[in-house]
Amino acid sequence: MDNLKKVLQDFQAGKIDIDQATELLSGSSRLEYATLDLDRNRRTGFPEVVYGAGKSPEQLVGIFSRLREHQELVLATRINEEQAEAVLRHWPDVRYEKEARLLIGAQKPFEPVREGYVAIVAAGTSDWPVAQEAAWTVRCFGSEARVIADVGVAGIHRLFQRLDEIRGAAVIVCIAGMEGALASVLAGLVDKPVIAVPTSVGYGANLGGIAALLSMLNSCANGVAVVNIDNGFGAGYLAGMIHRQSV
Amino acid sequence: MDNLKKVLQDFQAGKIDIDQATELLSGSSRLEYATLDLDRNRRTGFPEVVYGAGKSPEQLVGIFSRLREHQELVLATRINEEQAEAVLRHWPDVRYEKEARLLIGAQKPFEPVREGYVAIVAAGTSDWPVAQEAAWTVRCFGSEARVIADVGVAGIHRLFQRLDEIRGAAVIVCIAGMEGALASVLAGLVDKPVIAVPTSVGYGANLGGIAALLSMLNSCANGVAVVNIDNGFGAGYLAGMIHRQSV
Amino acid sequence: MDNLKKVLQDFQAGKIDIDQATELLSGSSRLEYATLDLDRNRRTGFPEVVYGAGKSPEQLVGIFSRLREHQELVLATRINEEQAEAVLRHWPDVRYEKEARLLIGAQKPFEPVREGYVAIVAAGTSDWPVAQEAAWTVRCFGSEARVIADVGVAGIHRLFQRLDEIRGAAVIVCIAGMEGALASVLAGLVDKPVIAVPTSVGYGANLGGIAALLSMLNSCANGVAVVNIDNGFGAGYLAGMIHRQSV
Amino acid sequence: MDNLKKVLQDFQAGKIDIDQATELLSGSSRLEYATLDLDRNRRTGFPEVVYGAGKSPEQLVGIFSRLREHQELVLATRINEEQAEAVLRHWPDVRYEKEARLLIGAQKPFEPVREGYVAIVAAGTSDWPVAQEAAWTVRCFGSEARVIADVGVAGIHRLFQRLDEIRGAAVIVCIAGMEGALASVLAGLVDKPVIAVPTSVGYGANLGGIAALLSMLNSCANGVAVVNIDNGFGAGYLAGMIHRQSV
Amino acid sequence: MDNLKKVLQDFQAGKIDIDQATELLSGSSRLEYATLDLDRNRRTGFPEVVYGAGKSPEQLVGIFSRLREHQELVLATRINEEQAEAVLRHWPDVRYEKEARLLIGAQKPFEPVREGYVAIVAAGTSDWPVAQEAAWTVRCFGSEARVIADVGVAGIHRLFQRLDEIRGAAVIVCIAGMEGALASVLAGLVDKPVIAVPTSVGYGANLGGIAALLSMLNSCANGVAVVNIDNGFGAGYLAGMIHRQSV
Amino acid sequence: MDNLKKVLQDFQAGKIDIDQATELLSGSSRLEYATLDLDRNRRTGFPEVVYGAGKSPEQLVGIFSRLREHQELVLATRINEEQAEAVLRHWPDVRYEKEARLLIGAQKPFEPVREGYVAIVAAGTSDWPVAQEAAWTVRCFGSEARVIADVGVAGIHRLFQRLDEIRGAAVIVCIAGMEGALASVLAGLVDKPVIAVPTSVGYGANLGGIAALLSMLNSCANGVAVVNIDNGFGAGYLAGMIHRQSV
Amino acid sequence: MDNLKKVLQDFQAGKIDIDQATELLSGSSRLEYATLDLDRNRRTGFPEVVYGAGKSPEQLVGIFSRLREHQELVLATRINEEQAEAVLRHWPDVRYEKEARLLIGAQKPFEPVREGYVAIVAAGTSDWPVAQEAAWTVRCFGSEARVIADVGVAGIHRLFQRLDEIRGAAVIVCIAGMEGALASVLAGLVDKPVIAVPTSVGYGANLGGIAALLSMLNSCANGVAVVNIDNGFGAGYLAGMIHRQSV
Amino acid sequence: MDNLKKVLQDFQAGKIDIDQATELLSGSSRLEYATLDLDRNRRTGFPEVVYGAGKSPEQLVGIFSRLREHQELVLATRINEEQAEAVLRHWPDVRYEKEARLLIGAQKPFEPVREGYVAIVAAGTSDWPVAQEAAWTVRCFGSEARVIADVGVAGIHRLFQRLDEIRGAAVIVCIAGMEGALASVLAGLVDKPVIAVPTSVGYGANLGGIAALLSMLNSCANGVAVVNIDNGFGAGYLAGMIHRQSV
Repeated sequence: MDNLKKVLQDFQAGKIDIDQATELLSGSSRLEYATLDLDRNRRTGFPEVVYGAGKSPEQLVGIFSRLREHQELVLATRINEEQAEAVLRHWPDVRYEKEARLLIGAQKPFEPVREGYVAIVAAGTSDWPVAQEAAWTVRCFGSEARVIADVGVAGIHRLFQRLDEIRGAAVIVCIAGMEGALASVLAGLVDKPVIAVPTSVGYGANLGGIAALLSMLNSCANGVAVVNIDNGFGAGYLAGMIHRQSV
Repeated sequence: MDNLKKVLQDFQAGKIDIDQATELLSGSSRLEYATLDLDRNRRTGFPEVVYGAGKSPEQLVGIFSRLREHQELVLATRINEEQAEAVLRHWPDVRYEKEARLLIGAQKPFEPVREGYVAIVAAGTSDWPVAQEAAWTVRCFGSEARVIADVGVAGIHRLFQRLDEIRGAAVIVCIAGMEGALASVLAGLVDKPVIAVPTSVGYGANLGGIAALLSMLNSCANGVAVVNIDNGFGAGYLAGMIHRQSV
Repeated sequence: MDNLKKVLQDFQAGKIDIDQATELLSGSSRLEYATLDLDRNRRTGFPEVVYGAGKSPEQLVGIFSRLREHQELVLATRINEEQAEAVLRHWPDVRYEKEARLLIGAQKPFEPVREGYVAIVAAGTSDWPVAQEAAWTVRCFGSEARVIADVGVAGIHRLFQRLDEIRGAAVIVCIAGMEGALASVLAGLVDKPVIAVPTSVGYGANLGGIAALLSMLNSCANGVAVVNIDNGFGAGYLAGMIHRQSV
Repeated sequence: MDNLKKVLQDFQAGKIDIDQATELLSGSSRLEYATLDLDRNRRTGFPEVVYGAGKSPEQLVGIFSRLREHQELVLATRINEEQAEAVLRHWPDVRYEKEARLLIGAQKPFEPVREGYVAIVAAGTSDWPVAQEAAWTVRCFGSEARVIADVGVAGIHRLFQRLDEIRGAAVIVCIAGMEGALASVLAGLVDKPVIAVPTSVGYGANLGGIAALLSMLNSCANGVAVVNIDNGFGAGYLAGMIHRQSV
Repeated sequence: MDNLKKVLQDFQAGKIDIDQATELLSGSSRLEYATLDLDRNRRTGFPEVVYGAGKSPEQLVGIFSRLREHQELVLATRINEEQAEAVLRHWPDVRYEKEARLLIGAQKPFEPVREGYVAIVAAGTSDWPVAQEAAWTVRCFGSEARVIADVGVAGIHRLFQRLDEIRGAAVIVCIAGMEGALASVLAGLVDKPVIAVPTSVGYGANLGGIAALLSMLNSCANGVAVVNIDNGFGAGYLAGMIHRQSV
Repeated sequence: MDNLKKVLQDFQAGKIDIDQATELLSGSSRLEYATLDLDRNRRTGFPEVVYGAGKSPEQLVGIFSRLREHQELVLATRINEEQAEAVLRHWPDVRYEKEARLLIGAQKPFEPVREGYVAIVAAGTSDWPVAQEAAWTVRCFGSEARVIADVGVAGIHRLFQRLDEIRGAAVIVCIAGMEGALASVLAGLVDKPVIAVPTSVGYGANLGGIAALLSMLNSCANGVAVVNIDNGFGAGYLAGMIHRQSV
Repeated sequence: MDNLKKVLQDFQAGKIDIDQATELLSGSSRLEYATLDLDRNRRTGFPEVVYGAGKSPEQLVGIFSRLREHQELVLATRINEEQAEAVLRHWPDVRYEKEARLLIGAQKPFEPVREGYVAIVAAGTSDWPVAQEAAWTVRCFGSEARVIADVGVAGIHRLFQRLDEIRGAAVIVCIAGMEGALASVLAGLVDKPVIAVPTSVGYGANLGGIAALLSMLNSCANGVAVVNIDNGFGAGYLAGMIHRQSV
Repeated sequence: MDNLKKVLQDFQAGKIDIDQATELLSGSSRLEYATLDLDRNRRTGFPEVVYGAGKSPEQLVGIFSRLREHQELVLATRINEEQAEAVLRHWPDVRYEKEARLLIGAQKPFEPVREGYVAIVAAGTSDWPVAQEAAWTVRCFGSEARVIADVGVAGIHRLFQRLDEIRGAAVIVCIAGMEGALASVLAGLVDKPVIAVPTSVGYGANLGGIAALLSMLNSCANGVAVVNIDNGFGAGYLAGMIHRQSV
């Protein structure tokens, strides 16, 4: 309601024109190939995020152009270098996190706005890019993200050495490929939600991450839920959401 | 019967030679590597369509050459750029819809020949190429195709805003990747057949489109049937067929 | 709109009480374990159908009781004998089609209300129960269903002998287990939509119907769409819907 | 540390004997076939939960006997009637939630100990047992659980009618079988974490719940994480944990 | 026995040296990375065939070099162009069938040595390379191979037009991708063994040929056996073997 | 042609009535739930075989009744005891091979009508029922079947002891569960076609016979083709067909 | 050689008759449905073990009868109660380990014949039957087996408490269902071979043990090899073999 | 304990500085993206091995740099040429085994330190790279590795010719792709542990090595355990470990 009122006031005051007002009232903005969800932030507390894979650079630029008019934060995932270049050519201030494959157009610096932090615990160095994707997503929520890398179960004392730091987090993202055992071990040691991300690190009977995915879904320890393979973004998103409401 | 009679009359009148007459009577035309189905249009109401994948440019040109003698419309699917160039070099009037990967050789403009339209409803921008393939196939049937892009369930109000347009269609093609939820939601809101196309948009546990495929096959809403992953052509074909008989 | 108006008039006239009016206005009716969709018929042209599997006899009776107040037709699928007995004990007029596992509570006889018919073409005798489920669903739509049994491709002349009857239908439901080849063969011979139902008839590498399902999804002939394994109801539903709008 | 100290004091004071003290110091208690984790509550905030499937009634009784000495709450999942009877014969105060297949031995009534509630949103009536399992697990955490049944996407207005109640929850558990579309739709409408539970409700290409599982893992809406098929307990556990820390 | 005797006679006569004699007596010839089976022809009636995939050009040349000393026919499958060039550089008389990916080093021309022929029936033009692989393998057995291309079930009259020729064969190889329906249809029409080859022609739910493979394994018609996906060689081999003994 | 003529002569001579003549001319006989293929023997050299699974005893009796009027041999597969009893109650002369789950109604004794034999080689004793199914099917073709049981590769000298007998066969059926290695070993030792039958003997990663199926499809030895899991009938059928034409 | 000589001497001395001598010389003994491998012990150091599943009680008795003539130890796996009763009726001295589903006919008591022991480490109580199968198999090798039950990773201190005992073993069998994480954790802590047995304990995405199997195959810790799901026997066998040669 | 003491003495003696001492006492060394396990050798008898896939050349160099300070042997697997070059640029003494894709930095020559050897038995020439990976890993354990190449079951006499050499080994690694039958055959002939490595050699229904993997897991011969597809390293590691303790 307040939302609608503000649009009408802005329109009356001449701050926005009739097309903009229409878009805002409808909560969406239409391109030939896209229908942007301008109402997403109001409903879910986070603006629409662009899924980069399968979009042409032209489409991506078109979408960025429209979203930047309406959103303080424009986040795009699964961005390859060609796509990134096309966007950066138009908006050099957009940040391209190459390892994480993220484009981040933000109007504010990434300072945590709340206490506490999210622990991003990764089993191996090869899980690093997924950990980065999760960490940057958490930061977009205004939370601090601490990455604890390469503490997989093959040398389990490495995990115990970091356990205080992990237990101190409000939410834990656990990232692991191969057999994904870290999620179960971790969940048995903490009293915080564990969001598990299976990765495609491995080969053969790893089946592109299916092994770790099944492993995490079948965790004998409780308090674990799972997102898609290599979906650091999704885990960071949920962690950010939980952290936001836990403080 | 009438069919056979006409061939014989044309032969007697010298309009076609004995080889052509033989082919027409047999309903097929033979190349070393292909046996073209000249009778397809009579049986199914639509001429043979060429499946491009796995054919050499030379084979494709050979097939086009023979089909164009017999058919007003020659449609080929899954055509890459190398194949398209080979065909266009011979017949510059053939239309290459690159996004849709279609070659269309037609002797008539694409004007709808009947009332009503087919709605092509796509969940995301990344589904755009499949939507184009469906739309152009519908047009080959002489029906109007309206593409309604990027109205997936993550921002479901976008779908409701277009619902009147969708409900006004005679048939609905629903295209979605990832979890393919749009098909079920849509089918619960309309009284028209929904032809669902799962796409390979997504990654990881998407399994190249299997996730969306299974989702659509298990729709809790009724009135949905499914075609192969990324098979915009197949959905457009069936939609065209249903529209043709519903007016 | 007319819908809402009528409820208010009936309420004012005392034909329905305030609880009933509330339900009708909301388009749903609530039990502890169920939320019945009273608005389904208005949106989709067919009332809510009850999925029997996994429901206790008590729940089923509760749902029937509430639905019969609001719907002329109450159809329930996947009903075992214990469930059927519980329902029939309350409403002896309800029809239990045991082979088809359907419960049908209807206030009108099953006379076709439109011209033409749906052909239900089944590959083998073992597909008979699925064919029956499809046929009765078509009849619930007020259309005639003709079952053409056991004309699978191992003896393909049996199919050709019935081809005129099949081609005369407005829509074709094609039911086959094992390798499901009938769908492709049939679709190459007709100019009507083919709704294919893979069945779980077979063993071993049949994988509970997956073989036929994949086969039908990959049909080399066009004009085929597929529903879930053994889903005679779903195919009959879509066929009924297409037939309804094609006359 | 405090933990260890208290054990020693109790031992010195004669409240516990040397065997009990040893067990408590080691944080575990040994039977021939089991090693009970007495330290679980301290580490994770919730005592060890017994997985019933595959255990003989005798083993189950042995485990209950030992755990009840140490834990205020003894929860066991996946309990069939034979197992339940064996346990109830010894401890008639234990509660057997048959639909949920849970045994709950608790020393306190189930009164919520904190504000707010967890919404358990289920797509269909057949998902009821899984919803019950989730709800009772949430209650074991001392949180209120509200079950919102049968609001699946086939009649999506049913979901919108309950949306305020769902949005009012601190955490949302979303339970759905068949295509599992409810999770994506729901997550696009709320600003709270959604823990999704795929169920095995369905048949054929449902693959025992795999279809819904894949669907939920590939949700196009953000803020969703997934637990194992039919794992109402696991979702209730995580929801309880998140709720506990969010107030 | 005769075999061993002949080696000893040749050795005594100085026709072969002691190393060659040892090899022949042992029935194998050793390289660092290979142990060639010189006895294969005696046991199975056909010499060892080289599987090209995964072998370096150097290894392939080494193997050819040794085999050509002992065998009249050296056949290698799954040969890419780089491998072919390496071999042809040493032995320009070796024949590279590029479509079929075969290298054939033979000392005799390919004249049929027995009556009758093998029919290679392929469903579509895209199956052509697999058909070629089968045909050349049959020819290596000294049998005539007749390729009947593109007679898939979408236009089933094309198959009937060639049925006499197919029925005239001693063995039938049936090659089809997509749904692989041709195998069942064909087997219902002939009284000869049908060796079915599923191909990877198709996409999406074709799963790289698994759809056709399952289809053929579940043929409702009898007299069909199946080889690996795209294994034209294997089918040609078995067909050649059957033809050899049937005349 | 001769076929048609004979029917007309018999009709004229009063040997058959008009209904029978019609059936014979059409090559099929119709029941409500079945369309029997009376022409199968003429086309394929073997009469229609009844697939028992999924048919009610009543349907089975109906089918037997009709087939026995027209065929000297009525063979039915996958027959359970209830079905067998229903058939034997009508025709006590029908033979029920319980292990093989076959019903055989024959008018002639099972004497081999040609020289040579088919070797049925089974890896383990648990494969015995499948071996029996294959053996009896071979006998229905008028060929001799010799079963060589339990010569799997774990004790490979058992195979070598029977190798002369196996090599003496015209065709070899190889039956194995678990890893199915016997097929490859055998095919490397013989110059006869090997029809391989994977069985569901095993557990766990055997996946109901899929392990053996994949193994046999990927045989490193040549001359092997595969039928469905546990399909002793199919293998016996093909073996009988090959033997028939090889003498 | 010595082997053969001894048979001849015994034959000459009249200790065995000519049939027995023939069997021993051939290393096998033939029944209609079985070919027993009397030479297994000589080749592999352990006599033939009978796989019970799929054998009739009669066949099992026949096999036991013959094997007991030749072997000191007759071990049979996967034996249900009906089979056990049939065997025990003939040989009451045979031991039926019901949980382990083993029949053990032995002429010596189970006293360890070498130093050291095999540790059987099981993750949960539900893995107990598989652990028993492994333990008894180890004992058949003459080694000591120590079962360490229920030390899964959800309460990892339980594992550390038993670590000295585990590290003291010569070989470790690790048994776990659900996500099977114990194998990786364990392998990272010991310098002994770990033979991992996935079990089917779990449900849903456990896929009957496939989750644990994949997990163990993808272990990030080294020194692990895996046997079939629930194959306690196979793991005990390999452990016994390794222990035998390590002392 | 001795371990800790030595660190403190070295620290006191000034041999190591305080950072190094801290690392050694903690048993790990931290980089931004890695936590190296310096304690691995003490626990498992073999130092940490680097998994190369998915690591950037920079990360790999960083890890090598740190590990070489602490370990005599630095082994890295799955190294591509770009990675190898980066490492060799810093440490030219590191050995790159290109076929095996291994980097080996060692301070001692590869002389066997114990009697006996490990036999690496490979089925085909295409399995050569995996065999090399296994052999070099065995050598890193200080054991002799003998590769016996291309003795697959298609020509089984090749295996028998090498059987004495294989039986003479202390442990056997068996490497095979396609159907992986070699493992079962081999295990039936030897009294030594067989570590089986399925390879991805093959195509189609080989499913990237899954066929061989399933085959080996279901071996009808006992004494076989399996590692991941193409995991020569893992098999060599376990073989080295077993050999180490068997002498």
